[in-house]
Amino acid sequence: MIQINEINTSHINQIIETRGFLHQVRRTGKQAFLVIRDQMSSIQGIAYVDGQKISKEMIQFIGNIPKESVVDIKGIVIAVEKPVESCTQSNIEIHVHEIFVVSRAISRLPLQIEDAMRPDGDDNLAKVNLDTKLDHRVLDLRTPTNQAILNILSSFGELFILILRENKFRMTFVPHMISCASEGGANVFELKYFLSTAYLAQSPQLYKQMGIIGGRKRVFVMGPVFRAENSNTHRHLTEFNCLDLEMQFYLHYHEVLDTLCQIMVSIFKMLEQECQEEINIVARQYPAKPFEYLEPTLVLTFTEGVQMLRQAGVTMGDHEDLTMANEKLLGRLVKIKFGTDFYVLDKFPLAVRPFYTMPDPEDPEFSNSYDFFMRGEEIMTGGQRIHGFEMLKASAIAHGVNLDSIRDYLNAFQYGVPPHAGGGIGLERVVMLYLGLPNIRMASMFPRDPKRLTP
Amino acid sequence: MIQINEINTSHINQIIETRGFLHQVRRTGKQAFLVIRDQMSSIQGIAYVDGQKISKEMIQFIGNIPKESVVDIKGIVIAVEKPVESCTQSNIEIHVHEIFVVSRAISRLPLQIEDAMRPDGDDNLAKVNLDTKLDHRVLDLRTPTNQAILNILSSFGELFILILRENKFRMTFVPHMISCASEGGANVFELKYFLSTAYLAQSPQLYKQMGIIGGRKRVFVMGPVFRAENSNTHRHLTEFNCLDLEMQFYLHYHEVLDTLCQIMVSIFKMLEQECQEEINIVARQYPAKPFEYLEPTLVLTFTEGVQMLRQAGVTMGDHEDLTMANEKLLGRLVKIKFGTDFYVLDKFPLAVRPFYTMPDPEDPEFSNSYDFFMRGEEIMTGGQRIHGFEMLKASAIAHGVNLDSIRDYLNAFQYGVPPHAGGGIGLERVVMLYLGLPNIRMASMFPRDPKRLTP
Repeated sequence: MIQINEINTSHINQIIETRGFLHQVRRTGKQAFLVIRDQMSSIQGIAYVDGQKISKEMIQFIGNIPKESVVDIKGIVIAVEKPVESCTQSNIEIHVHEIFVVSRAISRLPLQIEDAMRPDGDDNLAKVNLDTKLDHRVLDLRTPTNQAILNILSSFGELFILILRENKFRMTFVPHMISCASEGGANVFELKYFLSTAYLAQSPQLYKQMGIIGGRKRVFVMGPVFRAENSNTHRHLTEFNCLDLEMQFYLHYHEVLDTLCQIMVSIFKMLEQECQEEINIVARQYPAKPFEYLEPTLVLTFTEGVQMLRQAGVTMGDHEDLTMANEKLLGRLVKIKFGTDFYVLDKFPLAVRPFYTMPDPEDPEFSNSYDFFMRGEEIMTGGQRIHGFEMLKASAIAHGVNLDSIRDYLNAFQYGVPPHAGGGIGLERVVMLYLGLPNIRMASMFPRDPKRLTP
Repeated sequence: MIQINEINTSHINQIIETRGFLHQVRRTGKQAFLVIRDQMSSIQGIAYVDGQKISKEMIQFIGNIPKESVVDIKGIVIAVEKPVESCTQSNIEIHVHEIFVVSRAISRLPLQIEDAMRPDGDDNLAKVNLDTKLDHRVLDLRTPTNQAILNILSSFGELFILILRENKFRMTFVPHMISCASEGGANVFELKYFLSTAYLAQSPQLYKQMGIIGGRKRVFVMGPVFRAENSNTHRHLTEFNCLDLEMQFYLHYHEVLDTLCQIMVSIFKMLEQECQEEINIVARQYPAKPFEYLEPTLVLTFTEGVQMLRQAGVTMGDHEDLTMANEKLLGRLVKIKFGTDFYVLDKFPLAVRPFYTMPDPEDPEFSNSYDFFMRGEEIMTGGQRIHGFEMLKASAIAHGVNLDSIRDYLNAFQYGVPPHAGGGIGLERVVMLYLGLPNIRMASMFPRDPKRLTP
């Protein structure tokens, strides 16, 4: 058994056996043409009545196999004269000797793969809308575009872990059921926990910090986070995967910022190597300009960002957070001026950051915290954390945080705390922006939003 | 700044600077002895009044620094004449010139690190019971033993991913909030999901299978699973991490079983290389015999296992599941006969397996499914899955599964399904058994059980 993407011209005139989904089948008299698809690859097969191996009845049988059935075919690899445009294997085809239906699909599929893989356009060809795709996600996932997106999601996750491990970060496992709504009570899912109540963690923030206080040097957490936010936008999910990291530093939190920039650039580089075919396939259905970045990463201060916006006519205060529109605009301005889709804003105003954010010692209106942007949207937020008990307590009170809800976290700061900083990335959002996809749901295998809990 | 474990005899007579938790401090007249600890490493420091760098007041100051404070010390590395038994750096010490308190701990800690790291024994020295340790987990995690266990947990997770990636398995992200209680309604956490109800996934089983049906070849999922089971035992948690995998196969499910065995053996081998120091440190506090395994892995049939038990005097039916006591006994019998702590039982009776289990085509009383055992406890369960729609539906009905609760899953089997098999491992349980720890809570950073939702 050989996989479709492994067949090449060295197999010409050899008998091979392969398995795949029956992508297309067409019977014309004594012949049947078929296309077998396996992930991002496809190959054409031809069966014709030859008086020996293939009978007329066999051709009829083949013509009636429902599309998307899993089939094994055995046959001889033949070089074609005219390239087979519709297949990734365009120089060869298989002259089928035997075909075996491993698993038969129903005849009336809820969507057609060729419709689901078609780029948007003005032509009159059938398309499948996103909701229908997601309703029948198992079929929809079979398109080469979705196989490519899933590969990129996998690679992003795997490379993140590989690169962090090289940088001495250690995989860390934190609880997702917690006793209190960790970062404010809003937008948190609540559940019955035996005789009491638990909440689903909105981020691993407090626990990865407790890991550091527990003596860990560099930790990363990879796992789901849960947001009960009733946001029905192109970029919100109620469950998504977070790549979170936290590290001790010695002199300055820029040790952490530099590490984060290097990690992201390493991932981008390795993605380009590992997933170039995937990136091209996705761009054919969802056209987007290639993702550009600089090395070293462009780091601007928040104040510099505000200045660029003001020069472009925006009116805003020094300590005001960026609106989404201004984020987008700043992304375009940065792209024009510096030629990068990836940059960092450092030194955010303290007032717009969470209670555990370390103020800038040189200007307490600002903070030692940063956001990372891709194509003008925030993908990672992070910073130095307050490591002193009294300072943290005062900040929590000033932010109106219920101290009882962070009791274990707060108490941990009484036991000696190494200075630390970190950040968290939303995986699906990064992949959406990296590929320039129009909707985050396309970057999630089985997305969850306020209106979708299935499949 | 150099880390404590990086200091060596080449630094003798050099001035170095290091950071750590103040493990011990003792003042005697004009001298202060201290021990600085960083994860699994420690080094002795001595400060004495020399009329220049260190004053009498300074000695007093050092003597009053609370234990567990984070301190930076600067000083000269000196070879010692008599080994320092209490430190991992036993051949050198630091003559302190400067000390800086980075973060001060409170004076009255809820537990003492030296008590928490003491092995159980008949001596009269103070110990800390498990509940107290877990109540103050952030401090408890600082013991060298717990740092070692956390390293082993990290390595297990990271190596699992590395090895699966080498074997072409792809990291896959599945939802944890699902619309129906997937595998029977019992023991499932329920939550409000906007206007409806959701459940926390008890396993990624159905979704990783839907990934395969969606065209993926080999997938793995790493993440939390949730069990609302009111079991207060040494080996149950309500939230734990599952390493789950699923793969298409071509001819026989033993392609999968062989792959799983090779993956586990690879992990064991790499753990021994990567974590030998950790394994030794843990064994000092929790003595256990070294973990033994064979290569290739011992695979017995369930029937062979039953025969061994019967020869040892057990009475049980051919198609009866193993009780926990019989699992343990069989583990001991296998260890005596074959000299391994790790083995597989294949071909479980069909009646004791979940509805999606493929019957053995040669004997429908049995099934193409297996359990993996470590030190006589099950760590992985898996098998070939039914891939035919009608067969799966009939099996679900026979098992009393509410078809509506698995509608999306069941429907997916109408679209052509590649034959597949897989399995799932509980991370914490594997690490507990690998190290021979007496309680699974020791193998979880912040464990969750029916009575514990904090810290």
